[in-house]
Amino acid sequence: MSDKTQAKRPLKVAAAQLGPIHIKDSRDSVLARMIALLNQASEQAVQVVAFPELAFTTFFPRHLLQDEEIDSYLELDDEKLGGIRQSSNVKALFDHAESLGIDIYVGYAEKSPQPDGNFIHYNSSVYYSAAAKKVVGKYRKVHLPGVVEPFKEPGATQQLEKRYFKPGNLGFPAFRAPGLIENATKFSDAVEKGSMDGTGDPIMGMLICNDRRWAEGWRSYGLQGAELVFCGYNTTAFAPQLWGASTEISPEEAEADAVFHHKLSCQGNSYMNACFSVNIAKAGSEDGHPLIAGTIIVHPNGRILAESKSKDDELVAAEIDLADCRRGKEKTFAFHKHRRPEQYGLIVERAGVVEPGLL
Amino acid sequence: MSDKTQAKRPLKVAAAQLGPIHIKDSRDSVLARMIALLNQASEQAVQVVAFPELAFTTFFPRHLLQDEEIDSYLELDDEKLGGIRQSSNVKALFDHAESLGIDIYVGYAEKSPQPDGNFIHYNSSVYYSAAAKKVVGKYRKVHLPGVVEPFKEPGATQQLEKRYFKPGNLGFPAFRAPGLIENATKFSDAVEKGSMDGTGDPIMGMLICNDRRWAEGWRSYGLQGAELVFCGYNTTAFAPQLWGASTEISPEEAEADAVFHHKLSCQGNSYMNACFSVNIAKAGSEDGHPLIAGTIIVHPNGRILAESKSKDDELVAAEIDLADCRRGKEKTFAFHKHRRPEQYGLIVERAGVVEPGLL
Repeated sequence: MSDKTQAKRPLKVAAAQLGPIHIKDSRDSVLARMIALLNQASEQAVQVVAFPELAFTTFFPRHLLQDEEIDSYLELDDEKLGGIRQSSNVKALFDHAESLGIDIYVGYAEKSPQPDGNFIHYNSSVYYSAAAKKVVGKYRKVHLPGVVEPFKEPGATQQLEKRYFKPGNLGFPAFRAPGLIENATKFSDAVEKGSMDGTGDPIMGMLICNDRRWAEGWRSYGLQGAELVFCGYNTTAFAPQLWGASTEISPEEAEADAVFHHKLSCQGNSYMNACFSVNIAKAGSEDGHPLIAGTIIVHPNGRILAESKSKDDELVAAEIDLADCRRGKEKTFAFHKHRRPEQYGLIVERAGVVEPGLL
Repeated sequence: MSDKTQAKRPLKVAAAQLGPIHIKDSRDSVLARMIALLNQASEQAVQVVAFPELAFTTFFPRHLLQDEEIDSYLELDDEKLGGIRQSSNVKALFDHAESLGIDIYVGYAEKSPQPDGNFIHYNSSVYYSAAAKKVVGKYRKVHLPGVVEPFKEPGATQQLEKRYFKPGNLGFPAFRAPGLIENATKFSDAVEKGSMDGTGDPIMGMLICNDRRWAEGWRSYGLQGAELVFCGYNTTAFAPQLWGASTEISPEEAEADAVFHHKLSCQGNSYMNACFSVNIAKAGSEDGHPLIAGTIIVHPNGRILAESKSKDDELVAAEIDLADCRRGKEKTFAFHKHRRPEQYGLIVERAGVVEPGLL
């Protein structure tokens, strides 16, 4: 380890937890709330603010909707028109972030124009760099939960992400965010496969909600040296028909379980990939449908550094040092020394379970 | 879900934690301790007993040894001579387990004869079925920690697994253990790729020590429908020169950290693969070198069911129901519905980190 890699890499990050967004809440009212959180962040000298999954609207996949209804929840993301950055419903957020010099990670329902004139919808996120004045990272959610066909029970809470979205087709693309670390080198000293220097601009990755339970996404970012992973979410606190929970369980127990599993996933995968993670809830009861809170910033040692205290709009900030990733990346999780890809074939050879033959 | 898959699949399992084994402790004394734990298990009607990694000796990779010294720690595993089952140093353990009708998982230093007359050494484990009267599962540790070249500092605690062993070459082979579940079907109803029935003999997998921090092994077993994973370990409680710990940290803090990471790994990966796990320590101070305890049996919901209270020989037992795996395997972690192997290429395409180019 050179002295250089031991230099501090301080970064002030925040999760901008959102309270509930009801169906009737206007787009303008949501934008105003998000901008208020950006202003709070600016007062605290925060450099990067992360918003939840599908941050601009209610979590609409819980409702069975007609096509024209769905459209009102989508953001047009047309590169020819400047992409999501210039999309009319959300442009004000990017403008404000840029004016404050704050980077943002934000989730949205992407309406992606296709060459044939149709649109494909993804559950997406972008990372917008205030220094670069552009989107420097884009991700489309790979692990869509839920179902295509709605539950028939009257009044059932739906989970129709598989109906409304296509699975992400961009893999897990890590990216660098410029202008955040004062002493970042402007070129890589580490060009050998498997080498790591940890001195450049921060390496980041994005996940969305259910992705955080799937080690494959985290590892894909780990293999690109990610130091900071963002994951916004809308996680149901209690809906027996969705998750197969026993009817014996109380709403309070179900919520405690959901929070436990959320934290276990974020802490475990941050530790096993030696990265920080910022995990951002949309929380509280949206039109009577409860969502967990549990917004957390996690250290590469797996410990929680900061956590939300409410189910409302709340800024959860932490001063972190990205150099804290080096111990894990260079010792216990020095991938090039310890991983054995030749033994991992099953992971890409099959999607589902194939049980061993009976004796 | 058929009624059949909801049938209970009860199993009484135990982790046989071992206290320290010092260099001077005789092979016979260790075998006697292991047999005493088997007798305790029998009194409690335990069906499967799991012992630690390298269970028969001190954790010798912490010492720099000459070839002839190493040999005294190895078990000859020659299929022509009946394999590890008949290896003279350890045969008494298998004999006793068979006489009690108890299955065992046990770790050992494998001395494997090669066609050229030489031997290869692996850090291995077997699962011995009392009903089948034979070894039905074998595993060789894939993720060897440590280094090839010893640390030079006088008195340094070594970690020479990479020097003494070859990495495992058997992948992560799940297997079925017969005779444990009364109503297990004798054939599989689930022959379609991706289908799961959960009615046959229990599906098991084996990991060893450091493997538990690597999601790839757990997932490989998950993709074979594993309901129960065993992982024995010798985990250093405090050795700054090994793990890069700051010299600021106290031995107590270092041990607490090691236990936290151990549990986080076992709980997180059990949850994410919807399987039980039995994680078995060799614990306490071996010739002055401290090992963590933290023997735990983990439920597929990620919760700890039973935990050791000492750093000595201790049987940690639990009555589990393998049917509890079904909820996770059929809902949140229904792999065939949610996984996207076409997005996971990096996991097998590279061993180490390749950072994204600087902007």
